[in-house]
Amino acid sequence: MKERQTVGEIGEFGLIERFAARLGTPPEGETWTGDDAAVLRSPGSTLLYTTDLLIEGIDFDMRYASGADIGWKALAVNVSDIAAMGGRPRHAVVGLGLKADCPLDSADGILDGLLAAASRWGVQLVGGDISSASALVLYVALIGVAEAKPIRRSGARPGDAICVTGVLGGAAGGLALLRGGAVVEESARRRLVARQLRPEARLEEGRRLAALGATAMIDVSDGLVADLIHLLDASDLGCDVAPEAVPVDPGLIPLRDVLDPVEAALTGGEDFELLFTLAEDTVHRARASLAELGTPITRIGATREGSRRLLGDEALGAAGEVGWDHLRTR
Amino acid sequence: MKERQTVGEIGEFGLIERFAARLGTPPEGETWTGDDAAVLRSPGSTLLYTTDLLIEGIDFDMRYASGADIGWKALAVNVSDIAAMGGRPRHAVVGLGLKADCPLDSADGILDGLLAAASRWGVQLVGGDISSASALVLYVALIGVAEAKPIRRSGARPGDAICVTGVLGGAAGGLALLRGGAVVEESARRRLVARQLRPEARLEEGRRLAALGATAMIDVSDGLVADLIHLLDASDLGCDVAPEAVPVDPGLIPLRDVLDPVEAALTGGEDFELLFTLAEDTVHRARASLAELGTPITRIGATREGSRRLLGDEALGAAGEVGWDHLRTR
Repeated sequence: MKERQTVGEIGEFGLIERFAARLGTPPEGETWTGDDAAVLRSPGSTLLYTTDLLIEGIDFDMRYASGADIGWKALAVNVSDIAAMGGRPRHAVVGLGLKADCPLDSADGILDGLLAAASRWGVQLVGGDISSASALVLYVALIGVAEAKPIRRSGARPGDAICVTGVLGGAAGGLALLRGGAVVEESARRRLVARQLRPEARLEEGRRLAALGATAMIDVSDGLVADLIHLLDASDLGCDVAPEAVPVDPGLIPLRDVLDPVEAALTGGEDFELLFTLAEDTVHRARASLAELGTPITRIGATREGSRRLLGDEALGAAGEVGWDHLRTR
Repeated sequence: MKERQTVGEIGEFGLIERFAARLGTPPEGETWTGDDAAVLRSPGSTLLYTTDLLIEGIDFDMRYASGADIGWKALAVNVSDIAAMGGRPRHAVVGLGLKADCPLDSADGILDGLLAAASRWGVQLVGGDISSASALVLYVALIGVAEAKPIRRSGARPGDAICVTGVLGGAAGGLALLRGGAVVEESARRRLVARQLRPEARLEEGRRLAALGATAMIDVSDGLVADLIHLLDASDLGCDVAPEAVPVDPGLIPLRDVLDPVEAALTGGEDFELLFTLAEDTVHRARASLAELGTPITRIGATREGSRRLLGDEALGAAGEVGWDHLRTR
């Protein structure tokens, strides 16, 4: 007898694609699935809408992460989605599944982290739901507003520069440190661990890049290569990207015995930097504008018609073969 | 050594109150926590925003509920929250935590149920998130619009009639049947089980009641008594309510060996009828208007200054002592 196919066999992205195909066609001017946030028309404004679900043991490990870390990250990853559309986050609801024997101060800690992140990015927490659960469940659903045209993943044009903010691989390095097996100097450790546990959303950077005419944008949550593929697939373009141009977090160098810094930068995920395309002649203006915020940008290559080339090889495969998939079992 | 206090000791409502107190003060014209949905000002419109989290083993039991049942209910309970504000639901995001060995057709079933409910109430599913989980987790976050002034829980005036749509206790009866121990005629069984697994949101009823001038409204999710207390607390009023006036689902009569029909109607929960207050001289108009939809309304009592009286006793205690609490352990 044929075994029933499982969701683990098609994976998170396969399931999302399968579901997305059934949601129907958005009206003119709206985007539903397939981007960092949905774009919705509302009387008087264009709304952005996104959600992320974090589950204990999958998305975080309570041996390493405090309640406040988890609360912070749950909001930050949603703000990052709004940032990647060039928007401004506004109102969030929060859902929390807790074990009944969860200490009250741990629950308070989760709210501490949520409120700290909300204050950091001007978000208002306006409600939520609480249930009992056998493992900690935390989600945020965040409404934002687009003050200009939202920056989609699909807007890149052939010959655009491909750039990324900040440095990459730090979150993966922080996770490696939390899991043990490497010794680094304390301040370096703290910085990498913070990249894993207390990610920053590039909110003001996203808005400035939108104003400067970025043609496509995505946040680096699944890993640079995976997210680059998402952007290129949406834009129906290829690329030339030189891995040696990718900005590797310098804090990874002392960790090279436990993790390959370049591989971490290419596939590590959860850095929440912005990956974007824009006209080549605008790169210098973008660099100058983001330098005012203390955020470097690096040009890592260019889009082009046709196939993807990483280091001259056809090294960038189909989406789903690289990067983080929450469900995939094979 | 003093043991750390747990969330189970203060319960769902205690924790919600504790958290709500830290969220800050909404700007003029907004409501955050403490009602069926948050009321938010957005350029050009007033938004309603609500979310509900369902967790396997707590909020549903997969021995009784199919994926499609669970998907339907997850959306219906959110639509009911928007209905209780007199609003119209518009855009939902959905989060799904699945075991990796979950059969693909079960996951498809959840989407079937979500889409059926979305179609039923004119909701657009615009995105979501999927993660791996050790037990099924499903949430919906729903944005609605208020086409007129949202009906709060807090607007009841002394001397208003207290009314409820439909009949109560059916969802509790359906649960008792699913759990076994009673035999009833098949069509009666199907109807009660549907009240538990496939609840209807009283959406058009809510909008008509808002237009007719309902002063306060709440959906009956925790049980009539618990939700009446929520409404009265918000309005700072007492009541005279005659339990014999409460409309008991007639389908419960054959179940009286396994559950007290009046108790089920008073405390059963999950019927998702609307409990509302309005001026006494408007009751007949409300009754006529909802009769066009096939929905009866029943006047169960009246609000008044001072204490709560159920059957002449001070029988309605503090909120939290009756009704369903997802977390409370004692």
